[in-house]
Amino acid sequence: MYDIILKKREGLELTTEEIRFFIDGYTSGDIPDYQAAALLMAVYFRGLNDRETADLTMAMCDSGDRADLSVIPGLKVDKHSTGGVGDKTTLVLVPLVAAAGVPVAKMSGRGLGHTGGTVDKLEAIPGFRTVMEPAEFIEQVRRVGAAVVAQTGHLAPADKKLYALRDVTATVDSIPLIASSVMSKKIAAGADAIVLDVKVGSGAFMRDVEAAFNLARCMVEIGNRVGRRTMALITGMDQPLGYAVGNALEVLEAIGTLKGHGPADLLEVCLALGAIMLLLAGKAGSTAEGREMLTDLLRSGKALGW
Amino acid sequence: MYDIILKKREGLELTTEEIRFFIDGYTSGDIPDYQAAALLMAVYFRGLNDRETADLTMAMCDSGDRADLSVIPGLKVDKHSTGGVGDKTTLVLVPLVAAAGVPVAKMSGRGLGHTGGTVDKLEAIPGFRTVMEPAEFIEQVRRVGAAVVAQTGHLAPADKKLYALRDVTATVDSIPLIASSVMSKKIAAGADAIVLDVKVGSGAFMRDVEAAFNLARCMVEIGNRVGRRTMALITGMDQPLGYAVGNALEVLEAIGTLKGHGPADLLEVCLALGAIMLLLAGKAGSTAEGREMLTDLLRSGKALGW
Repeated sequence: MYDIILKKREGLELTTEEIRFFIDGYTSGDIPDYQAAALLMAVYFRGLNDRETADLTMAMCDSGDRADLSVIPGLKVDKHSTGGVGDKTTLVLVPLVAAAGVPVAKMSGRGLGHTGGTVDKLEAIPGFRTVMEPAEFIEQVRRVGAAVVAQTGHLAPADKKLYALRDVTATVDSIPLIASSVMSKKIAAGADAIVLDVKVGSGAFMRDVEAAFNLARCMVEIGNRVGRRTMALITGMDQPLGYAVGNALEVLEAIGTLKGHGPADLLEVCLALGAIMLLLAGKAGSTAEGREMLTDLLRSGKALGW
Repeated sequence: MYDIILKKREGLELTTEEIRFFIDGYTSGDIPDYQAAALLMAVYFRGLNDRETADLTMAMCDSGDRADLSVIPGLKVDKHSTGGVGDKTTLVLVPLVAAAGVPVAKMSGRGLGHTGGTVDKLEAIPGFRTVMEPAEFIEQVRRVGAAVVAQTGHLAPADKKLYALRDVTATVDSIPLIASSVMSKKIAAGADAIVLDVKVGSGAFMRDVEAAFNLARCMVEIGNRVGRRTMALITGMDQPLGYAVGNALEVLEAIGTLKGHGPADLLEVCLALGAIMLLLAGKAGSTAEGREMLTDLLRSGKALGW
């Protein structure tokens, strides 16, 4: 481990084996926190290239379980937002895309820092269950076409442990570390294709377009390297998305959007992301076609009715 | 501590209070190793300015005991070598300078890495005691004019703990961290003035003259900032000093040098360092005068006889 820290400190490229040695050893407890912390800070300054970042992602992904969605027919498309204020796109997109015939087996997170989380929002609906056993989760997707649940503890435990360390050692805001953290969980969650919504602006973790672009590029590169078709949109977060902020209020605004009277900015983000989801799932031949399908589903009330 | 790591990571200057908070907290165990490791790596990349380095030195110095040499009359001058191969200058210098009337109360170290240590060399003399209680140590200097002992465990414990962490996190070779580590122990050891022998070359920790100069400059700056007159020489270590390498052999070569037939390179280093010691102790008005005094003491046999 000493040699790995020294190598990265000197700006050299780590091999696949070295990255796996670090993640396996850190997850098992053989490598102590202080050596991991020194490596994280060296990575903060020296970065990781695309190959190293993809290797880190897969090593973290392989540290735990992987959801097996193969019993659900068709291409499964996941969507991830880097987090913002008033971001209720998942609440709109899941029924909308499911209504278009694309199965959605989605694991969502809770709020992080100042940003809201989909699981918190859903729990504003009395009686809504966000915790499900894997078998029940998959059965629901097969039966009704979609499910949104809280992430289970068995996905990418290495990422969980490493994130907790980054959080107390000022090594959170490194593009390759953020990208590998997000993608390790998305890949473990089992989707065939991934659509990323990278938020940029004063209400997002990425404050400027250049940083957001770098993060988006890094995550798309990881996905494509490991055989997941991945696309990203960079969307504005200089003001809240829509008008509603607060879990219950955001659920109401999402339902309003499905009824056809959503705020223009929210609607636009949902259509743009949804169109890519249909494209990647093979349901639409272009984003223009996907957009038209989604607009029809909203207009006809089928998205709400679903 | 998080804020301190972040501040240094961003290249900002740490305050005296922040540096003391870190050292006090780390020594007491309140600050965990992983946060210290992250800070050390950030320091490796961002550096410390002279004020921060002096503050770090004094915080580490204050973490333990300080030798009180005030009962020994006159200015006490210490000498420190950054370590090399065949470096037996201390064995020659201590009796030589003592013979000139400058009291030498010297704490020495053991070998580090590939370099030898004075304490190891002295222990090649059957019956030589290198461990002494502080009172006994000072009494010997008062009585016979000089003593060389192994460093006690109570000097700069913060440095000891931090050095052990640096050793396993690839953060040893940082100029301000090396400089503060050396100077915290030298200042705690109680001398009024310090002469530094910074070795440079293939057999030294500093491989090139620029790095050696930076280390020397950094240590002299610390000493002068905290009220210890400090001077440094940069001396070559591309080949061993003298001919003898090995503890017992080096003792014999040192005795030969005191008898007046030492190797030219060893003699030159001893005269150059010793002249500065006499200058700083106020025994000589210039290094030229000091050099002449030392040459006379060797020629007359008084250095050996002492």
